[in-house]
Amino acid sequence: MNNLTSQSPSRDGSAYGRPAQHSNPLLTQVGPGTPCGELMRRYWHPVAASADVKDLPRKVKILGEELVLFRDSGGRAGLLYPRCMHRGTSLFYGRIEPQGIRCCYHGWLFDVQGHCLDQPCEPEDGRHRENARQPWYPVEERYGLVFAYLGPPEKKPVLPRYDNLEDLAPDQEFWSNVGGFGSTGDNSLQVVPYSWLHMNDNVMDPFHVQVLHSTFSGIQFHQKFALMPRVDFFYADHGVCYSAIRELEDGQEVDRISSWLMPNIMSVPDIQFKAGQSSGVSWVVPVDDSHFVQATVMKMPRGGPGFALRVNGKTWGEMSEEEHQRVPGDFEAQSGQGAISLHSEEHLVTSDRGIMMQRRLLEKQMEVVAQGGDPVGVQFDPAKAVVKVRSGNFYRAARATG
Amino acid sequence: MNNLTSQSPSRDGSAYGRPAQHSNPLLTQVGPGTPCGELMRRYWHPVAASADVKDLPRKVKILGEELVLFRDSGGRAGLLYPRCMHRGTSLFYGRIEPQGIRCCYHGWLFDVQGHCLDQPCEPEDGRHRENARQPWYPVEERYGLVFAYLGPPEKKPVLPRYDNLEDLAPDQEFWSNVGGFGSTGDNSLQVVPYSWLHMNDNVMDPFHVQVLHSTFSGIQFHQKFALMPRVDFFYADHGVCYSAIRELEDGQEVDRISSWLMPNIMSVPDIQFKAGQSSGVSWVVPVDDSHFVQATVMKMPRGGPGFALRVNGKTWGEMSEEEHQRVPGDFEAQSGQGAISLHSEEHLVTSDRGIMMQRRLLEKQMEVVAQGGDPVGVQFDPAKAVVKVRSGNFYRAARATG
Amino acid sequence: MNNLTSQSPSRDGSAYGRPAQHSNPLLTQVGPGTPCGELMRRYWHPVAASADVKDLPRKVKILGEELVLFRDSGGRAGLLYPRCMHRGTSLFYGRIEPQGIRCCYHGWLFDVQGHCLDQPCEPEDGRHRENARQPWYPVEERYGLVFAYLGPPEKKPVLPRYDNLEDLAPDQEFWSNVGGFGSTGDNSLQVVPYSWLHMNDNVMDPFHVQVLHSTFSGIQFHQKFALMPRVDFFYADHGVCYSAIRELEDGQEVDRISSWLMPNIMSVPDIQFKAGQSSGVSWVVPVDDSHFVQATVMKMPRGGPGFALRVNGKTWGEMSEEEHQRVPGDFEAQSGQGAISLHSEEHLVTSDRGIMMQRRLLEKQMEVVAQGGDPVGVQFDPAKAVVKVRSGNFYRAARATG
Repeated sequence: MNNLTSQSPSRDGSAYGRPAQHSNPLLTQVGPGTPCGELMRRYWHPVAASADVKDLPRKVKILGEELVLFRDSGGRAGLLYPRCMHRGTSLFYGRIEPQGIRCCYHGWLFDVQGHCLDQPCEPEDGRHRENARQPWYPVEERYGLVFAYLGPPEKKPVLPRYDNLEDLAPDQEFWSNVGGFGSTGDNSLQVVPYSWLHMNDNVMDPFHVQVLHSTFSGIQFHQKFALMPRVDFFYADHGVCYSAIRELEDGQEVDRISSWLMPNIMSVPDIQFKAGQSSGVSWVVPVDDSHFVQATVMKMPRGGPGFALRVNGKTWGEMSEEEHQRVPGDFEAQSGQGAISLHSEEHLVTSDRGIMMQRRLLEKQMEVVAQGGDPVGVQFDPAKAVVKVRSGNFYRAARATG
Repeated sequence: MNNLTSQSPSRDGSAYGRPAQHSNPLLTQVGPGTPCGELMRRYWHPVAASADVKDLPRKVKILGEELVLFRDSGGRAGLLYPRCMHRGTSLFYGRIEPQGIRCCYHGWLFDVQGHCLDQPCEPEDGRHRENARQPWYPVEERYGLVFAYLGPPEKKPVLPRYDNLEDLAPDQEFWSNVGGFGSTGDNSLQVVPYSWLHMNDNVMDPFHVQVLHSTFSGIQFHQKFALMPRVDFFYADHGVCYSAIRELEDGQEVDRISSWLMPNIMSVPDIQFKAGQSSGVSWVVPVDDSHFVQATVMKMPRGGPGFALRVNGKTWGEMSEEEHQRVPGDFEAQSGQGAISLHSEEHLVTSDRGIMMQRRLLEKQMEVVAQGGDPVGVQFDPAKAVVKVRSGNFYRAARATG
Repeated sequence: MNNLTSQSPSRDGSAYGRPAQHSNPLLTQVGPGTPCGELMRRYWHPVAASADVKDLPRKVKILGEELVLFRDSGGRAGLLYPRCMHRGTSLFYGRIEPQGIRCCYHGWLFDVQGHCLDQPCEPEDGRHRENARQPWYPVEERYGLVFAYLGPPEKKPVLPRYDNLEDLAPDQEFWSNVGGFGSTGDNSLQVVPYSWLHMNDNVMDPFHVQVLHSTFSGIQFHQKFALMPRVDFFYADHGVCYSAIRELEDGQEVDRISSWLMPNIMSVPDIQFKAGQSSGVSWVVPVDDSHFVQATVMKMPRGGPGFALRVNGKTWGEMSEEEHQRVPGDFEAQSGQGAISLHSEEHLVTSDRGIMMQRRLLEKQMEVVAQGGDPVGVQFDPAKAVVKVRSGNFYRAARATG
């Protein structure tokens, strides 16, 4: 597992003459036609909180594509290619109407499926307008999020449900968020300026919690994180899980199970180590090769306070660069890998096994897609739309360690 | 005229798999040696208001070239390549002297035609200085503007006069402006950050006024714009005109004639629909492929107030992005086409006939230049320097509609 | 010496059709593997003031390479490749420890020579950690500066001493600075945004002082600079010197000797014309092809005031762009040459002989390095580490001019 390659002794480890390094394009390029981009396009991705799609169009950038999201006065959400097919003006400046969105320049009106309903400057309001079609993508709303499907129409899967989000108690509501919170713990960065893979690598990496979030920076989360766990990684359902078992002083142990689902979905258990199944699901949505947006939906007590992670009383956005140096967190660790890490110089070791499993699964499913198949986790049968989420903090009597 | 191409029905208009699009390089590249750049270089272009060229050098960027404009203490304006021919220091930091501009680094002195008059650090103040020549372009001043000619010296035309600017009444003066006002209606953007063609397309597009400036955003200009006109386009002189006839309630009609002259000149009638010939001329001067500067000269009442277009009491620069979304204007429509529009995906229709005529004329004249000829509108005979401007609002008894 | 090429008379010096120009890559490219970059890598360069390397890591960029400089709690300075060899997180966010720097992400600990001392998330804290080596460069401290050597380990020379810095009087101290002061005379620009060569050209150019710093801008330094000197250039030791002799009114003359040492070192005499040897040494350290940092060490009276050049009572950073136009200095002259000057259009003349000598020496030594030799000024014998600095203002009775 340890593939460190030392330099020849004569070089004495000097940085002089080290070879040029490069990113892994397979795992980081997400645009149309790229292997990872095409894999990603077979799944639904959240693009906005439903509550944020009101009476003004919104810019959305996802998988390298710039789009415009809107909600017509009839309540239907629509996601269109932003350049009006007539002369290219952005529909971001379009006007919301009962039947769709109208371009500001010459008034062409498009519905949520891109049909052109009016061309007011043309003879007879557009005799040939039924031939015109603004490029569009399907959207659906669930859990307070707007999801979009950017793949081939004939491959559109059902929008998944997650068992841990299905039964909302009367005193609960969904906290549904797109943008912010991903790596800073607060709302200061809507779009995170590095590859989605850096965050994705973080999910199946339980060890960094011991260092980055505990011994290194003081206890950032719960003090139980400072205990070094016994970790096991395993493929499960359509993703990777780890079980991190910590032995407690009272003779109990807690098994913290975390899940990553293809291709960019995670469910992390409560960071205060509250017992039971995880109450949320998150997505690491690539904006382009070097930016992503975090989306999260979580069951929360109705009317509860919002939250932001604080270190020494300050949110990430309130800290100076020197304070970030003194108390680094996920953002510093991940942005410190660069806009896109140089994977050729990585030295993956025993504790990186979860990451290797994730990457292997991603690459394998890219091949499945390239060969015309359907990647794991894609479901066409509405009766099978519910996904089981294994994540949670599970307490029990300690077993003997093997 | 309607060349909309629908996708195959199976695709259902999806944005997935749409082909890559591109700009039209012929109409948008303006640097030296490009077809449009060479065409543009056969005409004079305004580069500054005369009143702004005082005792400090000014940076000018036009047609992709960075230059320095100055006025020597003797009153002569000069336009030089900015990098001193000696060691490349910018003459922007040069000192104005009676005979020219002196480089700050080693004191070489150049006159408005680039002759080197002094080299103070050289033996005998530069024994060979008559061999030195700083690259220069000719300038002339008229109507309160400094015009420059960037073409081949042997092809330099006479600087045109415009008949609507020739007879200044005693109570009138020229409002002469370079920078600002182009697409925002105020002074907040000296340089406009998109292709000159977006603004040029706007000139022979009378229909957008009905939508963008009237029904869409409330009445931005005069309420007569809200009436849908009968429009005719025609080639005239060395450009394209349109006649937009609106029938009024009192049995009259108003014929609003707007002109575009090769290659980037327009004269728009009074936007309050005042009767008579247009009182101004404007230029859309390309800075580079994706920026332009608007220049305008207008006859105005002497000592009158300046002006800035206001929407709900606010100038463009005072509005928020949300307000721009709610009340878009020319800037939003044109910048919304991108830095350089993707012309391959345009769908030009009946109402775009004026734009097609302009572009056809531009492309045809590029060929004329490429074959060694002189493009239309270029005049070498000083006796024929006056250009007739047809633009204006002309009222008359309504004719029967054909 | 005068190689001005005039255009053909028919062109009349027009800027139209002038050929495209280019930089000299040989003298301006400093990255690994470039001729100038490899030459530079054979010498020690200052990267920080020792006093600035405290308990937080610092980013250093030099010769196109991004590095991290730190001082372990034991007081040893280290300069490492910044991306942790494990997963690429920047050691800028690492923690200083007694034995080295620990990566924030998974806690790998490296000493100042890149040895990996701990891998806390690995079995047995890293059974194979002795195979891991973080790329590193050697550093040494002297005169209050941290010097780094970025070349091949087997070619590492001794760190030079300078005779004018060796005997510090009891009432003196070193003013040791890296960043700022280079071309602005104040502290407002830590990194200067143009090629190191522009500043390097400035050193052996005594004539610009007459123009830029005297007649042009008023007397910026001492009024003696306004006297035009007799100048002689000569190769000396391992660099170029000039002697600039000014005849004074009292029958004396002052010989102002300035030195440039390979490859980027200068010693300029006191600008108030104080008699005697220069009291300082400066380096023009390339950050990358289009940025540099100035480093200086100077003997100063202990506890004296700091200094910043002022023009009309203002430091460079306090002046407006219009004030910079009216009173340009080194920054304006040099930044006015662009990020990297276009050397193909230079016209070097008699007064540029010093620059030509510098460039010739640089290019010749690049060849020496390319052929496996050691460039001049590189010393491997510690007994010969002291470099003689000739610079100074030397007064004497005036000789008859030849």
